[in-house]
Amino acid sequence: MSGGILKGMRVVEGSAFVAVPLAGMTLAQMGADVIRFDRLEGGLDAGRWPVTASGQSLFWAGLNKGKRSIAIDMKDPRGREIITEIITAPGDDAGLFLTNLRVKGWMDHATLSARRPDLCMVTLLGDRHGRPAVDYTVNPAVGFPAATGPEGSADPVCHVLPAWDCIAGNMVVSALLAAERHRLRTGQGQEAVLTLKDVAAAMLGNLGIIGEVAVNGVDRPKAGNALYGAYGQDFLCRDGRRVMVIGLTDRQWAGLVKVTGTAEAMAALGRDLKLDLADEGARWKARARITEILAPWFAVRRVDDFAADFDAAGVTWSVFRSFAQALAEDPDLSTRNPVFSEIDQPGIGRYLVPGSPLGFSALPREAPVRAPRLGEHTEEILADVARLPSHAIAALFDAGIVAEPNTPRRLAS
Amino acid sequence: MSGGILKGMRVVEGSAFVAVPLAGMTLAQMGADVIRFDRLEGGLDAGRWPVTASGQSLFWAGLNKGKRSIAIDMKDPRGREIITEIITAPGDDAGLFLTNLRVKGWMDHATLSARRPDLCMVTLLGDRHGRPAVDYTVNPAVGFPAATGPEGSADPVCHVLPAWDCIAGNMVVSALLAAERHRLRTGQGQEAVLTLKDVAAAMLGNLGIIGEVAVNGVDRPKAGNALYGAYGQDFLCRDGRRVMVIGLTDRQWAGLVKVTGTAEAMAALGRDLKLDLADEGARWKARARITEILAPWFAVRRVDDFAADFDAAGVTWSVFRSFAQALAEDPDLSTRNPVFSEIDQPGIGRYLVPGSPLGFSALPREAPVRAPRLGEHTEEILADVARLPSHAIAALFDAGIVAEPNTPRRLAS
Repeated sequence: MSGGILKGMRVVEGSAFVAVPLAGMTLAQMGADVIRFDRLEGGLDAGRWPVTASGQSLFWAGLNKGKRSIAIDMKDPRGREIITEIITAPGDDAGLFLTNLRVKGWMDHATLSARRPDLCMVTLLGDRHGRPAVDYTVNPAVGFPAATGPEGSADPVCHVLPAWDCIAGNMVVSALLAAERHRLRTGQGQEAVLTLKDVAAAMLGNLGIIGEVAVNGVDRPKAGNALYGAYGQDFLCRDGRRVMVIGLTDRQWAGLVKVTGTAEAMAALGRDLKLDLADEGARWKARARITEILAPWFAVRRVDDFAADFDAAGVTWSVFRSFAQALAEDPDLSTRNPVFSEIDQPGIGRYLVPGSPLGFSALPREAPVRAPRLGEHTEEILADVARLPSHAIAALFDAGIVAEPNTPRRLAS
Repeated sequence: MSGGILKGMRVVEGSAFVAVPLAGMTLAQMGADVIRFDRLEGGLDAGRWPVTASGQSLFWAGLNKGKRSIAIDMKDPRGREIITEIITAPGDDAGLFLTNLRVKGWMDHATLSARRPDLCMVTLLGDRHGRPAVDYTVNPAVGFPAATGPEGSADPVCHVLPAWDCIAGNMVVSALLAAERHRLRTGQGQEAVLTLKDVAAAMLGNLGIIGEVAVNGVDRPKAGNALYGAYGQDFLCRDGRRVMVIGLTDRQWAGLVKVTGTAEAMAALGRDLKLDLADEGARWKARARITEILAPWFAVRRVDDFAADFDAAGVTWSVFRSFAQALAEDPDLSTRNPVFSEIDQPGIGRYLVPGSPLGFSALPREAPVRAPRLGEHTEEILADVARLPSHAIAALFDAGIVAEPNTPRRLAS
């Protein structure tokens, strides 16, 4: 990174999978020097799918953009000592460490902060009991799959987006920035701890779902693709495309009724049901009947027939796309969107890669930087951060404690 | 908030719905003084479902915890001037503003920063074209519903968790903390802008999905509740409960095979398919056959029969629950979890409420603070932040520009 709002900050990351790598990448895309360390053979996520035909992880490439990589044998005490040096290296804007690896002894906060008392460390765990947890287990545990999918179905539907990881990863960023802010004011370091399970459990309360159960005594049933609590529904169009249409706010609802020319029909429906559809809750209660009125309108129209009118009227709507359709037809997923660039990723090739979705007016937008090869920066980090003389670095290579850069992959057997 | 890592920071929030209210609440739960301003009748989300029988919004109560509330008539120029004063009020730790409301003229960055040049403002928009967008439209546009749900089904399945809002809200927090950090170093204020659509578009790249389409030419199909790219599957047990079981890492896979006693069957399957199931991608390819081996094991057992063994062996797993089941049976969703407290919310009652999932070792954990009534802090904010003398405050009440506190709700007609 040439600039960025966090330029000068150095963050060390010992991680795998989504949340903490995403946190490090988010910081790197804001300009921080983020050093991810891994075993010589790569971390647990080195071969995480999707992978290319040759076994290169597109997942790893996506979540480690803009970082520096050091790969080192941490079974060797010299390897552990070097990582400790890197985590606790001096510098006012250093001494910042993110991890989701539970390594007792040498890599815990007590040990590391003995070396650098003002270390700011953020640790993401599975659950508060010390049990492992992943997005795929946290989500069923708190109840979302049971409320997802077609109305009346008894089968739980899990989400495909690892949403809890993405939320927790961004909370790791906030926690680090808050802890560093506190250090700047007090000189005090600390460890911030969060668990994936608690992130999900808390969100259940934040969104009013705990209250819905505890106060209203309601266990929210599946409602298909309907927007909960107001009006929003998917419709099939004449061209076979499906659209999502929103009538959450008064304005959205009025716009939808106007462009579909259904004002009279909706007024009659309100009279019939003795509901004022200007009230969002009334729209929720009447949603099936509202959909009956709107569905024929969409069924005889192609998306192209109404897209411009919908946009002009400020209707909040979208077509449904597959991932490939989104890439093929949405200009927001192309270099026409300044968030994206085409860059070369060693071992993978040239493809569309996002930078940070955050734009800061005081600084130019930074183009995305590719992910490192595994161990690509080992030698420079040993020299610049661990401050090892060249003969000591050579000795580490000779001893096999560090090695030439590799591309993170797992060989299929 | 009596303490918290951001104690002393003052943030003003002009917002509605999920993302920016969540951002403000997250900052409030870290100790910031967060002032949310609204119209006298409440914002667009004042009646957002879920609501209680009397129309009180559990959603609003969940997303505005720990904030101060001022309600004011912003159609009146005096109301707008007061909000401007509050946003740009002096203080080294003030001049921080979050919004997702597009109000031209008086509330944009150009106008506000003319009053306080070092203002740090974070603005969340729908998409980069200025069109409105909500979680329910962004998600279909980028492709997740098309990849969600039962294998072979053509029907898109939308998620129930507003994941993009939750992710974007946490990015708003990071953006504010990064901008304030930059201000501290340079004296410079700025506006950080992000869009909900770009947050989703970028995540598609971060997770490797863009590469999967662009490099591999694969449009990911639905795979039911299977963990993508390795092994993870849901199983129905003898007691009618369903569990999710994960074999993502080597250790998780080995643990699962061991406790289910299926080592021989898996070895035979590997020979049959000419795949080494120690490779995660091989497990993905063989997932249907693996599931055939494991399903009978679960079908003859109750969850209680294997729960302790699974935990002892470090298997990563979870039962599926509805929201009500999660509240009824999961101690992580109770006051046994220090994240949660039971607190009184005016107009709603006493129920289980989460504090921040973040624990900072340098400071005691803060109990959650209830959401304000609409306009609860109007008078004190006019006095302490807008610095109006009492006669001027009285005049505002007389003119109807501010009013007595209210509970945020929308009357059903």
